[in-house]
Amino acid sequence: MAGSNGTTTDLKSTFLNVYSVLKSELLHDPAFQFTDDSRQWVERMLDYNVPGGKLNRGLSVIDSYKYLKEGKELTEDEVFLACVLGWCIEWVLLQNTFPVLIEPVLQAYFLVLDDIMDNSHTRRGQLCWFRVPKVGLIAANDGVLLRNHIPRMLKNHFREKPYYVDLLDLFNEVEFQTASGQMIDLITTLEGEKDLSKYTMPLHHRIVQYKTAYYSFYLPVACALLMSGENLDKHIDVKNILIEMGTYFQVQDDYLDCFGDPEVIGKIGTDIEDFKCSWVVVKALELSNEEQKKLLHENYGKVDPANVAKVKAIYKDLDLQGVFAEYESKSYEKLIKFIEAHPSKAVQAVLKSFLGKIYKRLK
Amino acid sequence: MAGSNGTTTDLKSTFLNVYSVLKSELLHDPAFQFTDDSRQWVERMLDYNVPGGKLNRGLSVIDSYKYLKEGKELTEDEVFLACVLGWCIEWVLLQNTFPVLIEPVLQAYFLVLDDIMDNSHTRRGQLCWFRVPKVGLIAANDGVLLRNHIPRMLKNHFREKPYYVDLLDLFNEVEFQTASGQMIDLITTLEGEKDLSKYTMPLHHRIVQYKTAYYSFYLPVACALLMSGENLDKHIDVKNILIEMGTYFQVQDDYLDCFGDPEVIGKIGTDIEDFKCSWVVVKALELSNEEQKKLLHENYGKVDPANVAKVKAIYKDLDLQGVFAEYESKSYEKLIKFIEAHPSKAVQAVLKSFLGKIYKRLK
Repeated sequence: MAGSNGTTTDLKSTFLNVYSVLKSELLHDPAFQFTDDSRQWVERMLDYNVPGGKLNRGLSVIDSYKYLKEGKELTEDEVFLACVLGWCIEWVLLQNTFPVLIEPVLQAYFLVLDDIMDNSHTRRGQLCWFRVPKVGLIAANDGVLLRNHIPRMLKNHFREKPYYVDLLDLFNEVEFQTASGQMIDLITTLEGEKDLSKYTMPLHHRIVQYKTAYYSFYLPVACALLMSGENLDKHIDVKNILIEMGTYFQVQDDYLDCFGDPEVIGKIGTDIEDFKCSWVVVKALELSNEEQKKLLHENYGKVDPANVAKVKAIYKDLDLQGVFAEYESKSYEKLIKFIEAHPSKAVQAVLKSFLGKIYKRLK
Repeated sequence: MAGSNGTTTDLKSTFLNVYSVLKSELLHDPAFQFTDDSRQWVERMLDYNVPGGKLNRGLSVIDSYKYLKEGKELTEDEVFLACVLGWCIEWVLLQNTFPVLIEPVLQAYFLVLDDIMDNSHTRRGQLCWFRVPKVGLIAANDGVLLRNHIPRMLKNHFREKPYYVDLLDLFNEVEFQTASGQMIDLITTLEGEKDLSKYTMPLHHRIVQYKTAYYSFYLPVACALLMSGENLDKHIDVKNILIEMGTYFQVQDDYLDCFGDPEVIGKIGTDIEDFKCSWVVVKALELSNEEQKKLLHENYGKVDPANVAKVKAIYKDLDLQGVFAEYESKSYEKLIKFIEAHPSKAVQAVLKSFLGKIYKRLK
C-alpha cells in the first residue's frame, strides 16, 4: 500500500523526518549528560530497531486525525504533533517486540560461550558467566530506557496542551496493558511447553487483546481523538470496536504464519516450531478428536520438519482454512454492524479505514 | 536506626501495610485481566524484591513531609499518601537494582546449561539455547512491567490532586535519569574491562549523580514538596544540594565496600573483583605513579584473592583512608554551608535530617 501514490510517500517521508527530530532531542535531553559511548549506544539501538518497520501504527494516527477533521486541511503543526504521537506508538511497539529483538544478542553470546566450552575450557567458564549476563543486563535496561523515552517526547511537545494529562494517562494505561499481555504470552509459552492443553481460546483472546489490540488499534485512534479535543470516557464503544478489530487482526497474523505465502508475507512462519499459543493450534485442539490431540501433543513445538509436517497434516484434516474463512467473514460482518451503529460519520470513517486496510489481507 | 524507638517502628509497620494495599491494587488492576499464573508471577516478583530492603528512601518522604509541615500533626490521609509516594520510590530503586536481581536468575540457567554440557550433551544444546533466553526475556519484560506500575499507583491515588501532572513529570524525569545512569554504569564497566584508564573522576561523578542521587535524595524531597503545594521550579537550590549529598553518599558506599567492616555493613564487598568504576579505584588511578598504575591495571577486576590483595596494598600505600576522611569532612562543611544559606528553616530541617543520617556512617 505504502508508496502506491504520492501522498502516502510524502506522508511517510514527513514521518521519517520527525523521527530524526525526536531522536536528536532524546540524544540531547537536557535532563541527562550523555557520555559519547552512551549516546552512540542509544542512537544505534534506536536506528537499528525503530524506523525500519512498516510504521502502519504510527502513520494511522495522522490518517485518523484527518478523518476526524472531516476534510479540513491540517496545519504543519498538526501534522508534526500527529507524527510525534505516531512515533510514541512505534516506541511502544518496540518495547513490545523488544524481547524478540534482544534474543539474537543473547543467542550470540551463548554461542561464544558454546565455543569456549567446545574448546574444553569449561573451567574458564567462570570468566564467562561473569560476562554473558552483563550483556543481557544492558539489554534488559534498554527495555526500561525505551519505556522512559515516551514521556520525554510527550513532555517536549504536549506539555502546554489541555489534553496533556489525558495523553500521559492513556499511554501509561496502554503500556501497562501491553507489558502485561507480553508477560502472559511469555509465561503461557513456558507453561504450554510442559502441557499443550493449557492453550485455550479464552486465554488466546486475552493475550491478543492486551499484547496487540490496545496499542495497535485503540491507541492511534485514542491519540487522534485527544488531539481533536474529545473526552475518551465518552468513546468506550470506539474502544470496544477497535479491540475487537485488533483481535481479528492478530488471528489473521496467526493464520498467515501457517497458511500465508512466505513470498508475500516476507518471512517463513515458525509458530509451530516455536510452541506459540496461536489461534491455529488452539482451534485445532478445540476441533480435534482424541487421536489428533495426541498427535498434536507429540509433534507441536519441535524444530524437525517431520514433526511440523504432521502438525500441518492435522490442520488440513480439520479444514482450518475453511474454519478461518468462516471466522473472517463473520468478524467482518459483526464489525461493520457495530461501526454503522456509531452516531458520528467521521468516527465511522476512521473505523472503516482501519477495517478496510486489514480485511482479507494476505500479508 | 530503624526499630530503635516506638515511632520509627510504627512508621515502618504503617509503611508496610500500605505496601499490601498497593500490591493488591496492582494485582487487581481493572485495566488488565490477570491469569492465575501471571498474578502469581507478579506477586512473587514483588514480594521477593520490594519490601525486604532498608526502605530508607521510601520512609524519607514521610519524614521530609513532616518537617515541611513544621510540627503540625499529619492526617491519616496525608500519611497514607506520603507512603504511596515512598513506595513509588522503592519501585524506582527496584528497577535500578533489577539487573543485579535478575543476574542470579540468568546465572542459575547458565548453570543448568553447564551441567548439560558437562554431561556431553552439547548437541542437545539446541534445546537449551531455546529455553535459556526465554527466561531472560521474561526477566527483561519484568523490568518494563515494574516501570509501568508506578504511574498506575500514582493515578489510583493522586489523579484528582492539583499537583498530579507535576508528580507524573517528576517521576518521568527522574526515572529517565536513573535508567540512563544505569546504562552508562553498565557500558562503562564493559569498556573499563578492556581499558581501566577509562575510569575517571568526572565519569564516576556522572554515573553516581544520575544512577543514585536523583532518585535516592532529590526524589523523596521533591515528592514531599509537591504534597506541600510547592512549585519545584522554585527549588533548584534544594535539588542541587541533594544531588551533591547523594554523590557524597555514593562515594561513602564505594569506600565502605572496600574499607568497611563486613560485620557492620552486612556483606563482603566485591567491587574490586567486579571491575566496578568505584570512587576508590578512580582516586587510586589519580594518585598513583606509573608503577602503581601498571599494578592496578594488572590486578583490578580479577577474582583471585592474590590479585585483590595487590590492589588493596596499593590503596594502603596511597593512604586512601586518609584521602577519604579528608573528602568526607570537606563535603560535610560544604553541604552545611549551602544548607544554612537556604531561606526556609523547614527546608533546612529536611536537608539537615538527610545529612545527619549519612554523615560518617559506617554502614
